[in-house]
Amino acid sequence: MTDIYDCIIVGAGPAGLAAALYTSRDRFKSLMLEKFQPGGQINNTDRIENYPGIKHTDGPGLIETMYNQAEHFGTEIQTNCEVTKLEKSSDGNIVVFCDEQQFAAKAVILAPGSDYRKLGVPGEEKFRKAGAGVSYCGTCDGPFFKGKQVVCVGGGNTAIEETLGLTRFAEKVTLIHRRDEFRATKVLAEELLQKAQKPDSNLIIKYSTVATAIQGKEKVQSVKLKNIKTGREEDYPCDGVFIFIGMVPNTNFIKGFVELTDKGFIKCDCAYLRTNVPGVFVAGDCRVGAAMQLATAVADGIVAAMMLRQYFREPKWWKEPVSDLLQPAGW
Amino acid sequence: MTDIYDCIIVGAGPAGLAAALYTSRDRFKSLMLEKFQPGGQINNTDRIENYPGIKHTDGPGLIETMYNQAEHFGTEIQTNCEVTKLEKSSDGNIVVFCDEQQFAAKAVILAPGSDYRKLGVPGEEKFRKAGAGVSYCGTCDGPFFKGKQVVCVGGGNTAIEETLGLTRFAEKVTLIHRRDEFRATKVLAEELLQKAQKPDSNLIIKYSTVATAIQGKEKVQSVKLKNIKTGREEDYPCDGVFIFIGMVPNTNFIKGFVELTDKGFIKCDCAYLRTNVPGVFVAGDCRVGAAMQLATAVADGIVAAMMLRQYFREPKWWKEPVSDLLQPAGW
Repeated sequence: MTDIYDCIIVGAGPAGLAAALYTSRDRFKSLMLEKFQPGGQINNTDRIENYPGIKHTDGPGLIETMYNQAEHFGTEIQTNCEVTKLEKSSDGNIVVFCDEQQFAAKAVILAPGSDYRKLGVPGEEKFRKAGAGVSYCGTCDGPFFKGKQVVCVGGGNTAIEETLGLTRFAEKVTLIHRRDEFRATKVLAEELLQKAQKPDSNLIIKYSTVATAIQGKEKVQSVKLKNIKTGREEDYPCDGVFIFIGMVPNTNFIKGFVELTDKGFIKCDCAYLRTNVPGVFVAGDCRVGAAMQLATAVADGIVAAMMLRQYFREPKWWKEPVSDLLQPAGW
Repeated sequence: MTDIYDCIIVGAGPAGLAAALYTSRDRFKSLMLEKFQPGGQINNTDRIENYPGIKHTDGPGLIETMYNQAEHFGTEIQTNCEVTKLEKSSDGNIVVFCDEQQFAAKAVILAPGSDYRKLGVPGEEKFRKAGAGVSYCGTCDGPFFKGKQVVCVGGGNTAIEETLGLTRFAEKVTLIHRRDEFRATKVLAEELLQKAQKPDSNLIIKYSTVATAIQGKEKVQSVKLKNIKTGREEDYPCDGVFIFIGMVPNTNFIKGFVELTDKGFIKCDCAYLRTNVPGVFVAGDCRVGAAMQLATAVADGIVAAMMLRQYFREPKWWKEPVSDLLQPAGW
């Protein structure tokens, strides 16, 4: 171990890169560690039209600019460097273990991101880009399916919310669910059923059904469905498949170091993004309460970066509760 | 009054425009009302290098793209339309009064922004762009003054934090304060004094001093200082003037409608940006706890926009407290 960094940023997705831009522009000695290559989840996105300030872009292009910005201001970046463990050392610094190397910093910003849970069926990887027909985010990609036919997969809250949202864009939406009942909250499930029962509804629900393959030439053309009660299979024509079966935060490496929710998201306060470990901030899709949008991940990185000064000046600040003002009176 | 909008957005700065992009892309019938022209505060910024994803831009250029995005997805935009009052109507909608017109919506996103408090001295307006030498934000513009000499004005927490930050960029920083004592918190004032007392410090403090004019040809070349105890005046050479004397949120028109802090910022919860009035969200620099950065204002707009669905589905959600998970255990 050599120098002590002011800040180590774990993960080079939008949240981490935005954090790095701010910490290094603020002249904090910053190191960014990335398991694979920069970008993360957003690299799989070929069409972005909802990042304010940029009319059209794609994941890799946007990430390249963000990467250059972080590097330009002096962030040291190591890719293909997987963080396996963090420890608080007796001098209050945080030690980050990465393969056979270790690094120490006064503060850490955790931005490892989340991955969409995969169906794991043939065709899913091949058509993964929204332009080709497989998507994991209705809010992001729904508008690209105006007037088209889509199949949604899932049965939880997100699945139903996103499916309802998609009925405003697609000509026809078919939701398939492997059980014969939804696990989503009642109010959501009811709204879904009401919508499906309307006379000329564009929403169809298929229970006890799973997708076994996604098929097509260059784009999705159909999905193979199987009724798990009857065993009956069918080729179901569609232009897109939305898979809403959950997110998996990339937080295995910090289990036991910071507090996680049951689903593995990093717990934090919503105003300053402090975890339960002083000096360890969190940013982006890996945290509890994340809005899971590109621009909100970016803002997380910036908020965490801006809070470094506060923590460096007064470490006791870490234990201060979020201001009452951020909780309106009269609730 | 004619149609009922799903959402009215008050203010067409970065927060409002980002909200509009999301609400209208989500097919919510959206109306945006702007007092003057789109952009707000950021229009005065001629150099932006800390918006992740865009290497270099300026305020007006960035706003033009954001405006086009909101319009492209169908937001109705009225400029030169000053909102003077809001009211909750008996049917639960919110009525927005704008000159002689009134509009109604199921939800409102307040994004009126804040203005920097001005010194009100000759030259301040003329050199207002950071490229010309007058700035109100060290975090934003400090790096443009590397190796230069700057004068800072103010005595509160932000003034001292930002002044300390600037000592990492500028060759020489002079902080002038009209009193002979700082009103900032002790820990900050002490750090400042220690820094100024170091042998080859680049920080000078001048008490009981005010700036009476900012001078120069095309860029700032000096500031006229006056000691208010001795009456002595001097021309003090510098390349830039940073004015840190506070922010004034543009919230006069909603006094009595939503809860404000003593300083006029809109109270909200930090996770969902709900004010104390159901259906009225807030986004950007006008809210309590805002990070006051371009990208964080943008994210605010997006979070508020995404929460519309939640509120429309279940109005009672408004009174639900923010999840415990956003407050780590063990604090």
